Amino acid sequence: MINAAVIGYGYWGPNLVRNFIDNPDSNLLYVCDLDEARVKNLKIRYPQIKTTTNYKDILHDDSVQLVAIATPVSTHYRIAKDALNAGKHVLLEKPMTVRISEAEKLIDLAAKKNLILFVDHTFIYTGAVRHIRDLIAAGHLGDIYYFDSVRVNLGLFQHDVNVIWDLAPHDFSIMDYFISEKPVSVSAIGSACVLGEVEEIAYITVRFVSGLIAHFNVNWMSPVKIRRLMIGGSKKMVVFDDLIPDEKIKIYDKGLLLDLKKKSKDEVYKKIIQYRIGDMYSPKIESSEALKTEIAHLIDCIKHNKKPTTDGEAGLRVVKLLDAAHRSLCKGSACVKI
Amino acid sequence: MINAAVIGYGYWGPNLVRNFIDNPDSNLLYVCDLDEARVKNLKIRYPQIKTTTNYKDILHDDSVQLVAIATPVSTHYRIAKDALNAGKHVLLEKPMTVRISEAEKLIDLAAKKNLILFVDHTFIYTGAVRHIRDLIAAGHLGDIYYFDSVRVNLGLFQHDVNVIWDLAPHDFSIMDYFISEKPVSVSAIGSACVLGEVEEIAYITVRFVSGLIAHFNVNWMSPVKIRRLMIGGSKKMVVFDDLIPDEKIKIYDKGLLLDLKKKSKDEVYKKIIQYRIGDMYSPKIESSEALKTEIAHLIDCIKHNKKPTTDGEAGLRVVKLLDAAHRSLCKGSACVKI
Amino acid sequence: MINAAVIGYGYWGPNLVRNFIDNPDSNLLYVCDLDEARVKNLKIRYPQIKTTTNYKDILHDDSVQLVAIATPVSTHYRIAKDALNAGKHVLLEKPMTVRISEAEKLIDLAAKKNLILFVDHTFIYTGAVRHIRDLIAAGHLGDIYYFDSVRVNLGLFQHDVNVIWDLAPHDFSIMDYFISEKPVSVSAIGSACVLGEVEEIAYITVRFVSGLIAHFNVNWMSPVKIRRLMIGGSKKMVVFDDLIPDEKIKIYDKGLLLDLKKKSKDEVYKKIIQYRIGDMYSPKIESSEALKTEIAHLIDCIKHNKKPTTDGEAGLRVVKLLDAAHRSLCKGSACVKI
Amino acid sequence: MINAAVIGYGYWGPNLVRNFIDNPDSNLLYVCDLDEARVKNLKIRYPQIKTTTNYKDILHDDSVQLVAIATPVSTHYRIAKDALNAGKHVLLEKPMTVRISEAEKLIDLAAKKNLILFVDHTFIYTGAVRHIRDLIAAGHLGDIYYFDSVRVNLGLFQHDVNVIWDLAPHDFSIMDYFISEKPVSVSAIGSACVLGEVEEIAYITVRFVSGLIAHFNVNWMSPVKIRRLMIGGSKKMVVFDDLIPDEKIKIYDKGLLLDLKKKSKDEVYKKIIQYRIGDMYSPKIESSEALKTEIAHLIDCIKHNKKPTTDGEAGLRVVKLLDAAHRSLCKGSACVKI
Repeated sequence: MINAAVIGYGYWGPNLVRNFIDNPDSNLLYVCDLDEARVKNLKIRYPQIKTTTNYKDILHDDSVQLVAIATPVSTHYRIAKDALNAGKHVLLEKPMTVRISEAEKLIDLAAKKNLILFVDHTFIYTGAVRHIRDLIAAGHLGDIYYFDSVRVNLGLFQHDVNVIWDLAPHDFSIMDYFISEKPVSVSAIGSACVLGEVEEIAYITVRFVSGLIAHFNVNWMSPVKIRRLMIGGSKKMVVFDDLIPDEKIKIYDKGLLLDLKKKSKDEVYKKIIQYRIGDMYSPKIESSEALKTEIAHLIDCIKHNKKPTTDGEAGLRVVKLLDAAHRSLCKGSACVKI
Repeated sequence: MINAAVIGYGYWGPNLVRNFIDNPDSNLLYVCDLDEARVKNLKIRYPQIKTTTNYKDILHDDSVQLVAIATPVSTHYRIAKDALNAGKHVLLEKPMTVRISEAEKLIDLAAKKNLILFVDHTFIYTGAVRHIRDLIAAGHLGDIYYFDSVRVNLGLFQHDVNVIWDLAPHDFSIMDYFISEKPVSVSAIGSACVLGEVEEIAYITVRFVSGLIAHFNVNWMSPVKIRRLMIGGSKKMVVFDDLIPDEKIKIYDKGLLLDLKKKSKDEVYKKIIQYRIGDMYSPKIESSEALKTEIAHLIDCIKHNKKPTTDGEAGLRVVKLLDAAHRSLCKGSACVKI
Repeated sequence: MINAAVIGYGYWGPNLVRNFIDNPDSNLLYVCDLDEARVKNLKIRYPQIKTTTNYKDILHDDSVQLVAIATPVSTHYRIAKDALNAGKHVLLEKPMTVRISEAEKLIDLAAKKNLILFVDHTFIYTGAVRHIRDLIAAGHLGDIYYFDSVRVNLGLFQHDVNVIWDLAPHDFSIMDYFISEKPVSVSAIGSACVLGEVEEIAYITVRFVSGLIAHFNVNWMSPVKIRRLMIGGSKKMVVFDDLIPDEKIKIYDKGLLLDLKKKSKDEVYKKIIQYRIGDMYSPKIESSEALKTEIAHLIDCIKHNKKPTTDGEAGLRVVKLLDAAHRSLCKGSACVKI
Repeated sequence: MINAAVIGYGYWGPNLVRNFIDNPDSNLLYVCDLDEARVKNLKIRYPQIKTTTNYKDILHDDSVQLVAIATPVSTHYRIAKDALNAGKHVLLEKPMTVRISEAEKLIDLAAKKNLILFVDHTFIYTGAVRHIRDLIAAGHLGDIYYFDSVRVNLGLFQHDVNVIWDLAPHDFSIMDYFISEKPVSVSAIGSACVLGEVEEIAYITVRFVSGLIAHFNVNWMSPVKIRRLMIGGSKKMVVFDDLIPDEKIKIYDKGLLLDLKKKSKDEVYKKIIQYRIGDMYSPKIESSEALKTEIAHLIDCIKHNKKPTTDGEAGLRVVKLLDAAHRSLCKGSACVKI
């Protein structure tokens, strides 16, 4: 039984709390939030949980083994560092930190202390994302040509970070999980159209040596909600639409047929290219809650000292992409090397 | 009654032929195509039409007043120039020409000869596009923040032009029709992922002085067909999905409410931003065929010597955008001024 | 503060429990279920709640004022009767009872004891259903021609009741809420195609004197989930699709134009009928949880001795429709008077 | 080369004309229509075709071998009889005739004259319908539990026939093609809600000895267009949505798992029923125009004296269903034996 605490009871914290309560191998001892009203609400639902507005109370309690941190991103580094120094395992919301150097320091500190540093890239624990990753790893899609992601909706507006820091961590973590090749450069275009301060809409392109191109459309000012990822491969193509309950993944047996045995280039072009349009299928996907799977994995990693799928290194890779996109925006969409 | 001829009976030519036949004010005399089989097929359906494989036969016939040119884009300039020099009014497929200078020369020539030079930007004659344009012109959307267009499907692959030249003319012509402000720069990112020669996928961004950002996703390698344009305004937002037969346009009364009377910036940010989420409505759209409306407009312009909505200048503005996107691709996605 | 208890912690009970905990005017004292494992699970999440496997323990506790009953329908009458006799207000799951006479007896008993008898017709407390009801009540749809409901999916299979008793109470309660006219007859057709015992698929027709026809398609063996209600009126038509998160209701300004001033019948028919096809709009709908609204209404009714919207009479009207449909099935789809 | 004529150039006639012109083995000599304006329009498009307003002109021309009849249904019998008596092969629009006896007489007459009598059940020649029929015939769906069809939209209103005669022939012909078992009874419920004369909305149920139930929803007063057929089998289930261009057919590997080896009935019920939820796939469907395929088949049947897939017998079976549905309506939804 792992004794856990949650710091931050805002948008995401209640999901962490519920899942720690329901996990049979964890025991949720504490919840911390600066807002007294939130803490009071929690107390009505779950009177058995100790509450505090000072996270250091939690760190001083030796019975706590694991701290889940769901506070604003600017506070991640400080709280996670304190928790690791207090000997606690850490689950850290995404994005992991604001700065690359901070992520690196946390990784080093966790390694030195022999503690688990786990980043909450929740999508990696969904049945849909795992299914696509297995398809790619098994070579069923062939060579990957493009990765095209759209994540747009109206709000939630944030004042301290732009839309890239808010929405792109999801898609960067999925890309990082799917594509083993390392990205080489990032360019980003955005517009702070409404308030003129932080970008509310942005388009990001990530390039790879192989020619693979990844593109991300993130937008807080869209009248409709779209959550769609398309992946084009030489053998098959995939559409992942997270808003369709029963058919999230569609796999298309479509592509081009090329007969490359022909000698002259003209013959290849004029005569041999054909579209291959075959069947589509939509596999049954495991529908259990991602956070439940994730927390079970986290507890298993703590118990058996295993490396998590979404460890500090995965978190760092995402922060590097965010940092590069941010610098590209600042430099007028310049191409920024990673 | 205007005597017309169609040059080029490939993908689009049959639509021109059918519409010239059905228009009560036009008389289709000739069709020209280099492919004898196509001409033969035409002759079976419409034995009353004269056919030729040499377009000069048409230009030499003094009874022909109007020539519609639906040949590969590389031949547009030469055929259109010959037709204008022969004293014919010209309907030219999009994109108008390959080079900016060619478009400019055709405009000058038509002006000198006092002939109509009309570019077939078909979308401008759809009920949906006209409806949105009226909304924008009347100020119903408020300030336009973004114009986001997706036009993707599997093929038709073309060997002489890339996906930008093939698909973006549609969306550039729509943007040109909607946005009176002049664009200042274009950047484009693409990938020739399959064959390594012409780009099969591309993302283009057009910037304006006002901060308005326009983005275009064009892709020949998508397993699904998407034709969706989103326009975000300060008052309302529009989604135009050309694949939904009865509800092509949806207008969302959504946006942000800002109370700017507050003095301190912090107060504006923390307390006064709210989402406005109101009703959506989908107006009834005139459903007549765009090409029918277009040809009626063309004939009216010829008869009464009027300036067409999609004249040579409109064609030239689209060619300038295509040219800038193309140069940006060649320069590694550099930002190209217009 | 109303002291409440929940009897039955199966499929729906956990929603009742959560909402009673979160309601600021209620205090959830007890939960009862025959299954010890379920009770144990509850105890882990909510250690503050007393549990029992014998509902009489709850009835004997004088501090309990309200009992919510979410047990199998065959037990409703007995438990509700006991609860009313013990002086408790009652929230009863739908369908209210198996027999018409039982529903009538509960209504009488509650009246005699001056207790609230409330039936959990949850849909009546959704923003979408309330919006449509307001449209109808205000005459915006004109005369109602038809009410066409489809509620199909794969399972949940039940062994003690057929698909009509399982699914149709939702739609009957909505129809009852929308249509003030009394139904005159019911006919039902069904098939016990898989197991040959209870009907897994059924079609029900309800007729009204005015000519209004209501039709219900309920099916446990559908590969896809459909939750769609269409209402056709002389002025407007409504589609309510409960599976579309942001556009549940669409209101169509469509219908027929009839110029009835013409004298001869033939003229009316041949010349004057035209389709009126106008705009569609989708109003913004209040999105708060229906059960939250419902429980607040229930507590308000208890506190101020008000008549609930979904009182025993509403529950009885639905049981009468179910009973008639059931008898029609047994008589080979005969038309059964109500 | 078969010399053909088309009688009736209203809604469907132009499609017949175009397809006879394009078919390389047919030669369209004549078109007949009572409306001079329509004939004039045809003449502008296709000056090579002879026109008349008297169909007897066509029957008197010995060079005509095949007559396609696309006139109002009340005239089918007379014109088809005259054509067969004049020695012409006949393509007859659906429904074949108004009366069962008329259909039987035409079948006899064609047999006696050794002429092809072909009914235009167009759907039978679509790739989608043929694909589903092949699945059923190969046993992939297992036992068929239900056939559920929805065909609703706004208009076209007809004055001489009700919505069943207008829309149900499509679905009856598909059911007839899929289900080899003979139907035993039909019941129909309808409402003449708008004009009070012909039914604008109707629900029809067809029963079979095996327990298979077929249900049809046809409606001229629906604000939205739906064309959806669901077929539930013991092994697989199919949804055919004719309005989705690229994924018309979806095949679901869903159903129930029953372990019938258990002895007691209670055990079977409580423990052994499970849902089987597997993958969905959408096969690639041949997309050529159905009428093109149909006319090629018709000409092949004429040339080689073959029995057509949609012969007079198929037309008669559909007329029998229409007749039974009509009589059920007249008898207050009584169950009518076939």
